[in-house]
Amino acid sequence: MIDEPFLAVARGGTATHTPVWFMRQAGRALPEYRRLRGEGSINDAIADPDITTEVTLQPVRRYGVDAAILFSDIMTPLHAMGVGVDIVAGIGPVVADPITTRSDLARLRPYEPDVDAPYVGQAVRQLVAELDVPLIGFAGAPFTVASYLVEGRPSRNHTRTKALMHTDPALWFELCDRLADIAIATLRSQVSLGAGAVQLFDSWAGALSPSDYRRFALPASTRVLGALADTGVPRFHFGVGTGELLAAMATAGVEVMGVDWRTPLDIARERIESGLGRGIVLQGNLDPTIVTAGWEPTREAAVEVLAANAGHPGHIFNLGHGVLPETDPGVLTELVTFVHEQTRR
Amino acid sequence: MIDEPFLAVARGGTATHTPVWFMRQAGRALPEYRRLRGEGSINDAIADPDITTEVTLQPVRRYGVDAAILFSDIMTPLHAMGVGVDIVAGIGPVVADPITTRSDLARLRPYEPDVDAPYVGQAVRQLVAELDVPLIGFAGAPFTVASYLVEGRPSRNHTRTKALMHTDPALWFELCDRLADIAIATLRSQVSLGAGAVQLFDSWAGALSPSDYRRFALPASTRVLGALADTGVPRFHFGVGTGELLAAMATAGVEVMGVDWRTPLDIARERIESGLGRGIVLQGNLDPTIVTAGWEPTREAAVEVLAANAGHPGHIFNLGHGVLPETDPGVLTELVTFVHEQTRR
Repeated sequence: MIDEPFLAVARGGTATHTPVWFMRQAGRALPEYRRLRGEGSINDAIADPDITTEVTLQPVRRYGVDAAILFSDIMTPLHAMGVGVDIVAGIGPVVADPITTRSDLARLRPYEPDVDAPYVGQAVRQLVAELDVPLIGFAGAPFTVASYLVEGRPSRNHTRTKALMHTDPALWFELCDRLADIAIATLRSQVSLGAGAVQLFDSWAGALSPSDYRRFALPASTRVLGALADTGVPRFHFGVGTGELLAAMATAGVEVMGVDWRTPLDIARERIESGLGRGIVLQGNLDPTIVTAGWEPTREAAVEVLAANAGHPGHIFNLGHGVLPETDPGVLTELVTFVHEQTRR
Repeated sequence: MIDEPFLAVARGGTATHTPVWFMRQAGRALPEYRRLRGEGSINDAIADPDITTEVTLQPVRRYGVDAAILFSDIMTPLHAMGVGVDIVAGIGPVVADPITTRSDLARLRPYEPDVDAPYVGQAVRQLVAELDVPLIGFAGAPFTVASYLVEGRPSRNHTRTKALMHTDPALWFELCDRLADIAIATLRSQVSLGAGAVQLFDSWAGALSPSDYRRFALPASTRVLGALADTGVPRFHFGVGTGELLAAMATAGVEVMGVDWRTPLDIARERIESGLGRGIVLQGNLDPTIVTAGWEPTREAAVEVLAANAGHPGHIFNLGHGVLPETDPGVLTELVTFVHEQTRR
């Protein structure tokens, strides 16, 4: 994989074309995924290394993307540890007994990937052997995982989570500390088995004011990403609605900042680089909803993304959030080809 | 109401203290509201001028805020016109037959406030007679109202709406045009009966990329706000998650830009003023979720909001979104007193 575009660009180098992959590229938009998965539980699928391997490979074959991302979930380690979290179709992660007091923290013991979820490691091994593009490993950032654990399910306002951080910061930070340890164990295990990059998903960080983000979320994420520094793999950091947080998120120890569709790449780059005092590689940021409108709107939006990037070599093309289930996969195939052609150097 | 602080500041002048009001200040956080409303339909309550008057007055009495906002809903005109929209508790606006084709537009005939919803005008008249603070009228911006009509209910991704705008822009613009006419009729009627200011709620505009916002949402909102220019009342414009849209939204013809809690006021002011080339009055922006955590976190957050505003006289204090139902009204009372004291000139 010498001169392979995805890692070359992620490391701040150049490539023959802008690499492309899609968050949630493995998923319900693909008929071959729906056939394989049927109506079964996503946790059961993740627990089967052969299904995980096949589902991770499907979008690479279909779309010709420049990277694979492990088929998994940010709640997988907690599920594997028996914390009592399920992924309910149409809802998302549901926690049987949400965390409300200090005694609940005992359930968040250290995560041992080889013992708790050996099937994940097995899938990573199989994938690294089969793939001819890099495999991205990932974990959930402490804030976002904590929100699921405290709210008990996906939340619009994160009311309980914000109340906890503001009224019992000691408990909040201990919770985040344990979740940081779990994320570190998750990511280090994936990298040790051959994942070529890692992405920390802080999906709901955008619900926080910049001040709350810096105080209550950034420290634990910084610890997670810092603990990956010695591995040498590029570290990606992403959340939705994070326009005002990008500069802070980029200080956590990242090589690539993911940007959602709300912030044009030129603005994102200026904001991050003026905060960091150095260059940054950006990932994004076509509105995933536009893709559901068909090829012509998608093409126009891709042209806009590339125009905002203005030919900067530090760009990994992606959507601004995950592929929506109602997406026509044919449009994504066209999109990969289009971006490759438009950026051929 | 000479030298009354709310309108003085909204018009770009100064006042003896920073005025305060809260979006959704009339609502479920107040026990007197819950007692009066019981389990009845919100549309029935809005259709009763005495209930509307009482519910609008309750937060003025309780909190000592500097402005009242008419108890109503952005979907009220459409409900009154028989478009078939209901406000379902726990969900929000639900449209029986969502708009999908050109023939559906016929249902969006011109709105005649005196004929279609005389009870609203009656409530405005009663309120103006009783209030000793200004009454804010409001309407929904065409994009946000269109999203409800197209999706049929509150939507996270606005998939159908974005697909419609991108695949049939002619139909989209005609839909927005009709909704702009309805918003204009709504606001002009409220002002003619004595409302002292108007706010255009484009609650979901933040779902759009800046490019989509400028192309598909801004023109109709500009027409609405422009049609209020000759009335001389200050025009407020607000949406959630609009950090990247503030500069564009401010060009629509506004005296006051509302800011959600994600964008600190100093950053918002700089972004808007550099786009407009003139000063702007800002409204906001304490995270409404923080208020549910109690007084001390609320006080800290209020100090941060005031610090970000840095003593600028062009500031109307508000939350960054509506009061949440689980809010302790005592905390909001303390907040009004605190902001008044901290900003006394």
